[in-house]
Amino acid sequence: MTRVVMHGCNGHMGRVITDLCKADSEVSIVAGVDKFKGIENKYPVFDSISDVDVDFDVIIDFSNAAAVDDLLTYCESNGKPVVLCTTGLTDDMINHVDSASKKVAVLRSANMSLGINTLFDLCKKATQVFADAGYDIEIVEKHHNQKLDAPSGTALALADACNEALDEKYEYCYGRADRREKRPKNEIGISAVRGGNIVGEHEVIFAGLDEVITIKHTAYSKSVFAKGAVEAAKFLAGKPAGLYDMKQVIAEK
Amino acid sequence: MTRVVMHGCNGHMGRVITDLCKADSEVSIVAGVDKFKGIENKYPVFDSISDVDVDFDVIIDFSNAAAVDDLLTYCESNGKPVVLCTTGLTDDMINHVDSASKKVAVLRSANMSLGINTLFDLCKKATQVFADAGYDIEIVEKHHNQKLDAPSGTALALADACNEALDEKYEYCYGRADRREKRPKNEIGISAVRGGNIVGEHEVIFAGLDEVITIKHTAYSKSVFAKGAVEAAKFLAGKPAGLYDMKQVIAEK
Amino acid sequence: MTRVVMHGCNGHMGRVITDLCKADSEVSIVAGVDKFKGIENKYPVFDSISDVDVDFDVIIDFSNAAAVDDLLTYCESNGKPVVLCTTGLTDDMINHVDSASKKVAVLRSANMSLGINTLFDLCKKATQVFADAGYDIEIVEKHHNQKLDAPSGTALALADACNEALDEKYEYCYGRADRREKRPKNEIGISAVRGGNIVGEHEVIFAGLDEVITIKHTAYSKSVFAKGAVEAAKFLAGKPAGLYDMKQVIAEK
Amino acid sequence: MTRVVMHGCNGHMGRVITDLCKADSEVSIVAGVDKFKGIENKYPVFDSISDVDVDFDVIIDFSNAAAVDDLLTYCESNGKPVVLCTTGLTDDMINHVDSASKKVAVLRSANMSLGINTLFDLCKKATQVFADAGYDIEIVEKHHNQKLDAPSGTALALADACNEALDEKYEYCYGRADRREKRPKNEIGISAVRGGNIVGEHEVIFAGLDEVITIKHTAYSKSVFAKGAVEAAKFLAGKPAGLYDMKQVIAEK
Repeated sequence: MTRVVMHGCNGHMGRVITDLCKADSEVSIVAGVDKFKGIENKYPVFDSISDVDVDFDVIIDFSNAAAVDDLLTYCESNGKPVVLCTTGLTDDMINHVDSASKKVAVLRSANMSLGINTLFDLCKKATQVFADAGYDIEIVEKHHNQKLDAPSGTALALADACNEALDEKYEYCYGRADRREKRPKNEIGISAVRGGNIVGEHEVIFAGLDEVITIKHTAYSKSVFAKGAVEAAKFLAGKPAGLYDMKQVIAEK
Repeated sequence: MTRVVMHGCNGHMGRVITDLCKADSEVSIVAGVDKFKGIENKYPVFDSISDVDVDFDVIIDFSNAAAVDDLLTYCESNGKPVVLCTTGLTDDMINHVDSASKKVAVLRSANMSLGINTLFDLCKKATQVFADAGYDIEIVEKHHNQKLDAPSGTALALADACNEALDEKYEYCYGRADRREKRPKNEIGISAVRGGNIVGEHEVIFAGLDEVITIKHTAYSKSVFAKGAVEAAKFLAGKPAGLYDMKQVIAEK
Repeated sequence: MTRVVMHGCNGHMGRVITDLCKADSEVSIVAGVDKFKGIENKYPVFDSISDVDVDFDVIIDFSNAAAVDDLLTYCESNGKPVVLCTTGLTDDMINHVDSASKKVAVLRSANMSLGINTLFDLCKKATQVFADAGYDIEIVEKHHNQKLDAPSGTALALADACNEALDEKYEYCYGRADRREKRPKNEIGISAVRGGNIVGEHEVIFAGLDEVITIKHTAYSKSVFAKGAVEAAKFLAGKPAGLYDMKQVIAEK
Repeated sequence: MTRVVMHGCNGHMGRVITDLCKADSEVSIVAGVDKFKGIENKYPVFDSISDVDVDFDVIIDFSNAAAVDDLLTYCESNGKPVVLCTTGLTDDMINHVDSASKKVAVLRSANMSLGINTLFDLCKKATQVFADAGYDIEIVEKHHNQKLDAPSGTALALADACNEALDEKYEYCYGRADRREKRPKNEIGISAVRGGNIVGEHEVIFAGLDEVITIKHTAYSKSVFAKGAVEAAKFLAGKPAGLYDMKQVIAEK
């Protein structure tokens, strides 16, 4: 039984993870951390990670970027592994993640879903075959109309996975309306569609002579990220210092 | 039996239409016009439309923009209807189309396929229901890597069909990578994907609360435009002066 | 403000509708009916519809088939309109629905979503154009792995919408593995995919010469049915006796 | 320069391969075999493979099953490698393929396209991750309305590729309309859609909790199979005796 502290327990993702852990006999949330208190929890909730006074194995963090530095410092001092799901980290914070991972196990992934992380592998493999045969690579992602950034971080990470198999030689193109020319060979097009409350859809297209291969991921709810975080927590408990990501969680399955 | 002159008979589309007409007992190509002569034809081929010395009912034009003015002048003088499929016309040429249509039947459409032209209707109808209910509209089109313009003329025509049902109040957005904001309500996003030798795919998306409706067209070869041109020729033969498009061809079916 | 009694208020859909009504200023749930009581409600909950002692305009029913007869009898006696969302009714119950609708307004639909009900219209319109031009019609639906019936009632209703435009002359085909022949012309193929917890996806395909037109609906959560039920309740309050369905709700929008 | 004999040179695929080879400087068709002669060829055409009197390196066969036994006997006697693309072989013929491959290089694949053959790999890899995590696997294929068999041989081969990663433990299900039950875990559903002149579309779906991963292949024309055959011929020329398939052609690229 892995004992978890849920950091950001009363936010949307914190509550989804709480529900998920209730139904999972291999994991238990023993404490939460959140400044906001309006929600009934079955576990004690503290203002700050340093106030937590119960034993635990691993922290899952779905809070906000501003809280990440203090959390990492706590993990370093107390030798606690952490699954870091908060996004929008600054370069300084990412450096802190690196230095913390020298002392303690830290897992951080652009996207926590099992499906997306497998997509990285499939796309890399497909790129090796298809790019060599002259196929063009394009990515289309779809998200809800409240999303601020475009393209999504996951779309960029998928492009990076392809580009890794291309020796990083391809440029990314985010729109073609302002130019009038044939498609340059060494480019990956990335299109961002926004509408309704679409959770997240990513489609990687390999287009060749008279055939198109598509590798696609559709998320139906944010639970899919919660599930990945819980699997990551089980994986990380007891691991030595180091920087981990979801690929290793999948590989161990 | 409709007797057709194929203007641009030795170009790619001219040859596809020639093949199609062979298999269609309601239509016959009685002459062709093309400066290029390297191909064996079962009908006489002339250098210019004014050289044609056989009787016919209607002209199908798939030549190039530079030839359109002379063709229209010929039609006006000789009272011959014309199905005008050549694209990339200048504003002056489009004015000529309008004035010619006062004297003779002219059919011109952004896209000659039965499917795409029905899509215009379906999208207009869908927009009336969904836009009112607060759904967002997005268009994704995919074409081969040799296409110069983006988005496609057909994608713009689909956006126009939706916008017509919206009192022309929506802006078109061709890429979101350069801004950081929630999706504005009164906008139609249009994304252009380019790769391989994709003939043409258009997808109109209506995204609402927990549901997405998609209306999509896939062309598998250019024959689909040829078929529309032949149907249009049958329709146009004998019609009075006026400017027609594929919608009327479909409506009469 | 439409005052609603939520019949089956503590079931999954009852709770989703309760949440939705909280955020909608035009409608208010004034009472619930459910034998099961373990949930905190902001409105009084009764064991049976006949116990309800508050004023209301319309009933939304998402309970179970066994409760439908008593509910209809109550509506007939008390002149209350009812939005009947419970599925799996027997032929006897459907006869009861018909007779009740002679005395009071009853709305019943194969599917409560705005999107699906618009799809019926779009498919009928598309069938008129495409079937005449010799295009084949196929339906693919995808649902979660717990669903007992295949194909879905909505897929059958979509096939019926197409068939209506075909003078009911087409047969339905549910699988082709047991025969070895070219596709008969007068048939609509219906395929059922089952997996994971897919909420519901329906795709109607019109396949012709070198082009395919697809009209598709994706539901991301059951809220989409809840939303339709609430819109139906607003529509039905104050309506005269009769049998209504979602099409009329959409037409009035 | 690989010198090819095209067996079945005047059939549809023979002609497509002939066109493709004209544009490829690494390969040349030096002779054809076909009983049917109505077509103009730039190379000599013989009635039977044993009549061919020019030097060559490899045979591409796109003829019909009845001709395969004689062809294999010829290859065995004359030490000529053969790319065998004809489908519908009987068990006896397949035994002949096996015994011939002891003496000479024989390449045979369920599907000759680069894309489909890469799909086999991607699906196997995806199955290893997703089936273990409890995801359901479903396949949907779409083909033209003249196709006799359902599901397609390629759909079955994709199911086999998944099943290989599942220790062959899964059953195939070709339709669910005749039963009324939850989806059994150890099954792969295969649905066949037929319409218009769709060349071939295959979609493998992995459906889990709140996410769906789709790996899809679309063929736009039969050229895609021709291209694979030509690549296979280049690969096979000069290879030692053995049974090869497209996977090895891809691996060597």
